[in-house]
Parts: sequence; structure tokens; C-alpha cells
Amino acid sequence: MPIYAAPIKDTQFVLKHILNLDKYANLPGFADATPDVINAVLEEGAKFVEQVLQPINLSGDREGCTRHADGSVSTPTGYKEAYRQFVDGGWGTLSAPREYGGQNMPHVIGTAFNEYLISANMAFAMYPGLTHGAISSILVRGSDEQKQTYLPNMVSGKWLGTMNLTEPHCGTDLGLIRTRAEPQPDGSYKLTGTKIFISSGDNDLAENIIHLVLAKATGAPDTVKGISLFIVPKFLVNADGTLGAKNGVSCGSIEHKMGIKGSATCVMNYDGATGYLVGEREKGLQAMFIMMNAARLGVGQQGMAMSEVAYQNAAHYAKDRIQGRALTGAKAPEQKADPIIVHPDVRRMLLDARSFNEGARAFTLWGGLLVDLAHKAMTEQERQDADDLVSLLTPVIKGFITDKGYEYSTTCQQVLGGHGYIEEWGMSQFVRDARIAMIYEGANGIQAMDLVGRKLAQNGGRAVRSFFELIATYCNDHKSDDTMKPFIAPLEKSLGHLQASTMWLMQNGLANPDDAGAAAYPYMHIMGLVCLGYLWAQTAKAAQTALAGGTDDPDFYANKLIVAQYFTERHLVETSSLRHKVEAGSKTIMAMAANQF
Amino acid sequence: MPIYAAPIKDTQFVLKHILNLDKYANLPGFADATPDVINAVLEEGAKFVEQVLQPINLSGDREGCTRHADGSVSTPTGYKEAYRQFVDGGWGTLSAPREYGGQNMPHVIGTAFNEYLISANMAFAMYPGLTHGAISSILVRGSDEQKQTYLPNMVSGKWLGTMNLTEPHCGTDLGLIRTRAEPQPDGSYKLTGTKIFISSGDNDLAENIIHLVLAKATGAPDTVKGISLFIVPKFLVNADGTLGAKNGVSCGSIEHKMGIKGSATCVMNYDGATGYLVGEREKGLQAMFIMMNAARLGVGQQGMAMSEVAYQNAAHYAKDRIQGRALTGAKAPEQKADPIIVHPDVRRMLLDARSFNEGARAFTLWGGLLVDLAHKAMTEQERQDADDLVSLLTPVIKGFITDKGYEYSTTCQQVLGGHGYIEEWGMSQFVRDARIAMIYEGANGIQAMDLVGRKLAQNGGRAVRSFFELIATYCNDHKSDDTMKPFIAPLEKSLGHLQASTMWLMQNGLANPDDAGAAAYPYMHIMGLVCLGYLWAQTAKAAQTALAGGTDDPDFYANKLIVAQYFTERHLVETSSLRHKVEAGSKTIMAMAANQF
Repeated sequence: MPIYAAPIKDTQFVLKHILNLDKYANLPGFADATPDVINAVLEEGAKFVEQVLQPINLSGDREGCTRHADGSVSTPTGYKEAYRQFVDGGWGTLSAPREYGGQNMPHVIGTAFNEYLISANMAFAMYPGLTHGAISSILVRGSDEQKQTYLPNMVSGKWLGTMNLTEPHCGTDLGLIRTRAEPQPDGSYKLTGTKIFISSGDNDLAENIIHLVLAKATGAPDTVKGISLFIVPKFLVNADGTLGAKNGVSCGSIEHKMGIKGSATCVMNYDGATGYLVGEREKGLQAMFIMMNAARLGVGQQGMAMSEVAYQNAAHYAKDRIQGRALTGAKAPEQKADPIIVHPDVRRMLLDARSFNEGARAFTLWGGLLVDLAHKAMTEQERQDADDLVSLLTPVIKGFITDKGYEYSTTCQQVLGGHGYIEEWGMSQFVRDARIAMIYEGANGIQAMDLVGRKLAQNGGRAVRSFFELIATYCNDHKSDDTMKPFIAPLEKSLGHLQASTMWLMQNGLANPDDAGAAAYPYMHIMGLVCLGYLWAQTAKAAQTALAGGTDDPDFYANKLIVAQYFTERHLVETSSLRHKVEAGSKTIMAMAANQF
Repeated sequence: MPIYAAPIKDTQFVLKHILNLDKYANLPGFADATPDVINAVLEEGAKFVEQVLQPINLSGDREGCTRHADGSVSTPTGYKEAYRQFVDGGWGTLSAPREYGGQNMPHVIGTAFNEYLISANMAFAMYPGLTHGAISSILVRGSDEQKQTYLPNMVSGKWLGTMNLTEPHCGTDLGLIRTRAEPQPDGSYKLTGTKIFISSGDNDLAENIIHLVLAKATGAPDTVKGISLFIVPKFLVNADGTLGAKNGVSCGSIEHKMGIKGSATCVMNYDGATGYLVGEREKGLQAMFIMMNAARLGVGQQGMAMSEVAYQNAAHYAKDRIQGRALTGAKAPEQKADPIIVHPDVRRMLLDARSFNEGARAFTLWGGLLVDLAHKAMTEQERQDADDLVSLLTPVIKGFITDKGYEYSTTCQQVLGGHGYIEEWGMSQFVRDARIAMIYEGANGIQAMDLVGRKLAQNGGRAVRSFFELIATYCNDHKSDDTMKPFIAPLEKSLGHLQASTMWLMQNGLANPDDAGAAAYPYMHIMGLVCLGYLWAQTAKAAQTALAGGTDDPDFYANKLIVAQYFTERHLVETSSLRHKVEAGSKTIMAMAANQF
């Protein structure tokens, strides 16, 4: 059976030493989130996911979801009970607004717990995860009546939410949407069409499901500009808040997927279903983007969370499995063989994953804090800076972290040799589950295009300039510190590759958009590596400070220094090759006729 | 439903232009393999795998194998009939020796067909694939009587073969084997023990299964030096060649695996089973290595073959799926959207795979030819040179090609977006099937250690020196050719990184074996890239020659030039980062205490 222990100390380290959370105690919601409260949340949250969710992860993968003849969908054994405990414990309400029953904690704290939830059971985490996205859209764009009608039960988890974008013939290009919404005399609409890949489209966890659906209202342009967003409840809600009639929406089938099998992925048929417009007509895409940006940060976390649980299992195996002898002579001569952790190449695999995971944890929590600051920072300038930065980095968190999370989940699977390929050991599931994160909420190629085609240029490049300045300033502030040289010099070099790549894009991508398209993917990866390099440099500094100050946990900080060094030597060096790929341009990539592929 | 068409033209190109097969017409077996014969084999082979094996690939994955209460194992629906056609068509006999019923064709031709077999149905290909390995061991080490008794039926495919190495507590470290063999008065042995991960350990395809089993005979040292190799038939064979009693070996259970689900992976229980010593007592490991080296080349092919079929499906989808518009303006204005092949980032994914696949095809076929030459070349010197080279390159073909094959299978899956994650589209299966090739026949980390720890040093480094000379000579011969400069200059640079890395290993790895261990993996990848760069340079030269000479298929050769250029710009550049990883050494990797992982 796979194991999992929530990495509480690592989370606390990031919150305290990298994000300096105590600096924000004066902001709304932060005051109540004292270190004691945060620790209690993390510790109780860890217990919950370890004791309730992790034990049904492997069995849920094996069993999957079941659609019955009447269109209803059952989740795997144990999910229903676990979800009840999730709701009773208020685990979905951490960062939700108090007026709708939330605990009003900083988003970054909800983000921290979310990692544990995913590592323990990614398929299960999809149910509340999608609901959070739906809540965001209603919060920002819904009417007061809609907020009152839907949010309290969605926040508590009594009801779940979904996002309905994709149709059989359209995913990325939402302009092709065919689902129609016909206005009714009472102001509501009747929706008709088919949506696919709808996570938790139907399930037996909650008594109602609030679908958020993109459709084109009668008379709207048949392009991306004609899209509106609608609320379509599974059961209509009476004026007194009780549940009314079943709406005209049902699950037509569920998909057989590579992973996240405990998450019901549904084809949803809308057959004159009653829907309510959210926000303005034909502004549906903007409303949906609110949901998607939040969701993209969560998906980025999935990549890291899978690599983390895969690492824990691989490390456990490597210390336990005896096989062969160390290259430098027996390390456990009393046994017939040494544990395989003695081998440099086994350590390479483990450190590849660990140095990514810890950096990516800092990166995703930073993203979570920036969301808080974009809303709650004291000054307009600070809010704008945070918003700029999180907009710029969201595609990187989504694209880079899910690519690498899958890669290192695979690497950790490799540590187990043949056992890694056998389902009962659980490593295959981590890899299969991690795989989807590279695809949904905008495939990673789309993230790269979002970064290069939109985010770099926004407001005349304001965000990326601030980002460069942030890191350059950090380097300048620490380069005279001898102990920091091993981290600062390579970071500066990588920043140089990123800046040169950006310059190349400015000089070429505008004149020839194909050059931008050809460079986007490696560019996104350079930026991801630079972000992790920056966060690892800060980690090293904090570790040095703690060690110099006489900590009672010297191993913890010494390990941080070792892993920081590993990241710098083995990951950050990839920025030079990636820059070559950026500068290779689009000539070769576009040379072959389409029919020759 | 996934598609597959065997890439016959590409195979022919490699055989003719890269391997110059006509040069070897004077060697045994080659004379009969005229271009016409080869073309007929490839064309008929293509038809067979496309019409018989590919259609049962997806269904076989879904259904898997079944173990019945009596320990017997059924393969998926259609496998039995397909296997009968395989045997009737003589598809397992291509490169087998004539005296045992083989067609005596060059090994490289069998290798070419083997790729098609794997791409069409990797799980099915495991059954004859393992048998080939078993045949090799008996051919080289078996007694005349054993050859007569077993080989004709194994060559024809009437009987299947297996390799039994792994036990629950031992995989890589075979010294830990516990299976015992007790000598009997009649010269046979009684084998008792448990073997795991035994591919095709039991199945319903063949009337008998010849297990090759590693065990320790009574009194043998309880180390790797005490291992002997035994033949243990499922049914004992009477003196007249008919089948006798069922032997004391049975399948205890079958594994639930991530992929290759149509291949029955068995726990095999030996309970006083009758076995016959192969070759000398306590020389079992050497006999097994014969089998493993052949098998490793075949496993390398699996990586490429999965990436090839994944590429074909991804390219098909990319030309078919309309979504969004080209960055440079509509390419199909008559439709509501352009096919996604217009996007540079989609082409990046396809070309990443294709430039790897075509290079890896040349690499694996080169490996196949070197096996022929090591046995059949005219002079002792030529045989030794070929043997040196194939020994050196076998771990690279296995380790590098399966790593990359999995990576690019994943990349091709990405092209399909959400559909790539749904089992019925088949892309998930290619990824899941490809995954095992990185693990079995020696996990890729073991391959890297074999390369760095054994192959480099063998005979005072004779093989690697010849290899460097081969490529350096090629570069020198072509560097004054202006049209070849785009290929030769980067190849020389990469060769330089490889040579510098080798030098680093010599200077550090001997004094500190952990430095060798820490460097092995990136070193293996540099060598793989240099091999592909060398083969792509030859490809470019052949294409230029064909185009200059006025070919009737200019697109084919023009595409080769484009893909060669792509490989050079986007893959070969990685050698510089990899060299940094080699030179990072083992200090950081070994710094952390084992219990801190």
C-alpha cells in the first residue's frame, strides 16, 4: 500500500521564511491566521487527508465511477462517507468569504491545504476543486440573488459545482460552441446542447450540482464574442431554498480515462434545461476566465502534489529495498545487500523529484499569496503589482509545474523497478493521475502561448519587467555574500538566458508570430526554472540564517542547502539549452507541408 | 480507433542509404536477402501486423489476461487466432538458423519486422519476443540434444519460451536468488522456488512453454557465482518429441500492470519441477547475458516503436482536428477554424517525436546489423569491431531510446488534448505500454552503469575510442562540404561534449566510483544524442545526394532534410546541459544522510 504524510514542516518553512506571512498581518483575513491557527489547520488537515482520503485512493482508482441506467453516477466505495466528513469538517470553507459561511482565511492557506488533499487523493480533490472555481465566478459576476441562492450551500460543500466549456468538436477554440440558450418570458433561458469532459458532471456526493455552462443565447454572434455564462442547477431551487424539480440536464456517459478514475468525467446532455444568466450577456468568456485562472493555479499544484507523494513512496522504497552493494564498498555488511539508496543514480532520481517538489511548493504558495495580495494589499500599487505578477506566472505555474510533476512522478516510479509498474504499489496511479494536469484547464502548449502571446505584452510588458527587476535586485542584494555565491551566480546566468530569450521574442515574435509560437514552450520552461532558482536561493539564505543562528533542527536546514545546491547544479543548467531552442526560431518547424506529417 | 501503417519506406531508406546493406551481400544469409526479398518481407509483414495484430491491440488492453482457478492463463480475445496466423506465416522464423527451421535471414531484417510487430501490438509481440531470447541461450549454450529437442518447435513458434530471473526479493542483484536445484540420479534437477514478473509464464497460445530458469544447485555458493541456468518445460518432452507429463511448475497469479495488459505477467511457482542444466554449472549468468543482450536491443526498439505509432495517430489528429486559427492568419478560411497542424507548437510536438523516431529507427537497425557483423563479417577484425561497437551501444539503445520513446509517446498524446487521456483513442495505451521498456531487462539506471562502469573500460577503452574515431572521421570527411555544415558543426560540438565527459569520467570516476555513478545517466543520454546526430547527418547526406541526382520522390528526401535540421536545432543542443550534469559530480548527490530522504 502506498504511503503519504503531509509535509507540514516544509509548508511552514515556505510560509514563514519565503513568503514572510507575518508581514501581512494587517491585511483582512490575515490577522486571524496567526501561526498557531495556521499550524492547527495544517495539522488537522494532514490528519484528515492521511486518515480518510489516502486510504481510499488506490481502491478508488481500481473501482472507478459507475453510471447507472437512469443516468445517475456513483463514486467509488468510501467516497460518499469521506465527502460527508470533508463537509462536516468544513474543509472546503477555509478561504471562502465569511458572509457565505466561509472561514475567510487567506487564499494561501487554502492553497497549502489543497496540496495535501491532492497528494492524498487527487481524484477526490476534483469534486471540491471544481466547486471552488464555480464559486469564484458567481462571487465576481453573479447577482446578489444568485449569490444568496447558491453560494452558502456551495461554500459548505452541501452542493457541488462544475464548469461546462468543452464540446465534442471544440476545446481550446470556444468560438465553436454550439450549445444554445433560448430566452424565456420569465428571464430564464432554456439550454440545449452537449458538453464533454465535465468533471463531476454527475455524482452521488452532494444533493445538488450547480453547473456553470457556456452557451450562445439566441441571436448572439456565432463566435467567441457570442458566449454567455449560465447557472444550470441539477435540481431547480425553490424560493425558500428547498430543492425543486429535476432540471433537463443529465449524464449521457462517463469516460474511461488513463487516470483520476475516481473523478466522474461526464458527457452532459442539456435538453431544454433551465438556466440563469450570470453577469452580462455575451460576456461569458470573461466570467469563465475568473474561474479558469483560479483553477490553473490549482492544476499546477496537482503536478507538484503527485510528484511529492510519488517521491515519498520512492524514498521509502529506496531505504527499504536491499539489492547489490554500494560502489564504494558495502554499507550494510551485516546484510546480504545494501539498501539501494546508497547508489548515486537512485539518489539522482530522488533528488530530481525532491528539488523540484520543494521549489514548486514555494512557487504555488507564492502564487496563492499573490492572489490574496491582488485583492487585499493595502495600496492600489501593491494590488496591481501582485495582480501583474500572478497573471504573468499563472501559465508558468500551470504549464511548467505540471510538465515537471509528471516527469518526476515517472522518475519516482522508476525507483521501484518492476514494482513501479504493478498497480498495487500505487506508483502507476500517481503517474496516470498526474498526466491529466498537463492537458486540462488549457493544455500546456496553450499556457505557453498565453504567456508569450498575451502576458508578456500586457500593459507594455510591465509585468515581465517587474519580474526581471525583482530577481535582479535579489541577485544584487546577495551577490557579495560569499555563502550565497553558489546560488546567485547560476541564477543570474539563467536570468540572463531568460532576458535574452525575451529580447529575441520581442525582436522576432512580433514580426513573425510563428517565431513566437515556436519559442513559446521552451520559453515557458526557462521562466519556470528561473522562478524555482529564485525561490531556492531564498531557501538557501533562510537555511544559512537558521543554521548560523543555532537552530534546534539543524538537519532540516542542512538538507535545504543540499537540495538547493542540487537544483542549481542539475536543473537550472538546463536554461542554456532551452535558450538555444527559443532562438532556433520557426523556419524549420514551419518548413514541412502539413500533408507531409 | 487508433491507426497504424508500417513505415516501409523509412525502413528501406535506412537499410539502403545508412546501413548500405548491399555492401554485405557476400556474407552468409545476406546473399539471399536481396532488395526484392527484403521488400517482400517488409510489405507482407506490414500487411500482417496492420490487418491481424493492430485491430486487437486496444481490445486486448481493455480485456487483459485472465488466470483461471486451475492456474491456467487465457490471453485476450483474438490473440490465439492471431498467434496461429503468426506461426503459420513463419513470422517468428525470419532470422532463425535454417537447421532448426528458420529462414536464416540477416538479424537486421528480423529487427526491421520486429518494429512493426511492436508498433501494432506491443503486448502480443512479447510472446514471440521472449521466445527469441530463450532460443539464443539454448543455441549458444545448450547441448546438441537440447537443441534438437527444443529449438525446432521454439523456432516455428509451436512452443514459446520464457526467461525466469526475478524473485520477490531480487531483481538487479541476482546473487540473492533463492530458487534451488537439487541434482537427481538421472542427471536432471528438481527446481523449487518462486519467480515473479515472468512474461508469458503461462498462456493459451502455444502447446508447450520452455522456461529458462536461474537457480542455485545444491552446494553452490550462495552468491552470483553460484547461479546455473536450467531448461524447465511446462510439459516434459518424451524421447520421440511428443509431450509427456505436466511438470511441477505453475502460474500462481498474474500481475495487474500499468500497461502491456495483453501480455501475461506471471508469478511462477516451481515445486520440485524437473529441469535440465544448460551449459556448465554455475555459469548461468553468462548464459543468461546472451539472452539479455539480444533482449535489450529489442526493448530499445519498443521505445521507438511506441513513439512511432503515437506519432502517426497524433499527426492524423493534428491534420484532422479544426480549432482556432493560424497565428499568421486563416489557412482554411472556408472552414470555421484551421486544422491544428498550422500551429508551431503542435508541429514542435510532432517533430520532437518524428525526429527522434527516424533517428532511433536508424540506431536500432544499426544495432541489428552490428549483431550480424559480429557473427558473420569476413575478418576477425571486422567481427571484433562490430562486437565492440554493439556491446558499447546496447545499453545506450536500451536506456536512451526507451527514455525518449516514453517521453515522445507522452508528447504525442498531448497533441490530442483531452481525447489523449480517454482510453478509446489509444494514446494512453501507447504511453502505458512504452513505460515498461524503461524498467525491464535492466532498468535504465542499470544500463547507464553498464555503459559507464563496464563498457567504457572494457579492453582498455578500445570500443569507445573506435566509436569516437568513427564519428570524428565522418565529421572530417564532410566538414568541407558546405551543404553539410549545418549538420556537421553541431555534431562535432556534441562529440566534443561527449569526449570531454568521457575524460571527466576517466579523471574522476576511477578515483571515486560515486562520481561515475552520479554521471552515468546524463552521460548515457549524451551518447544517445551523438549517435542520433551522426545518423541524422548521414541521413541528410543521403537526402542531398538523392535530391541532387533527381529523385522521383523529392518530398520524401526534402522531409528528411527538414527533420534532420530540426533534430540538430532542438535535440542535439541538449548535450551541453547534459555535460554540465556529468561534471557536477557526486558531492551534492551523496551529501545527504540516507535517513534524511
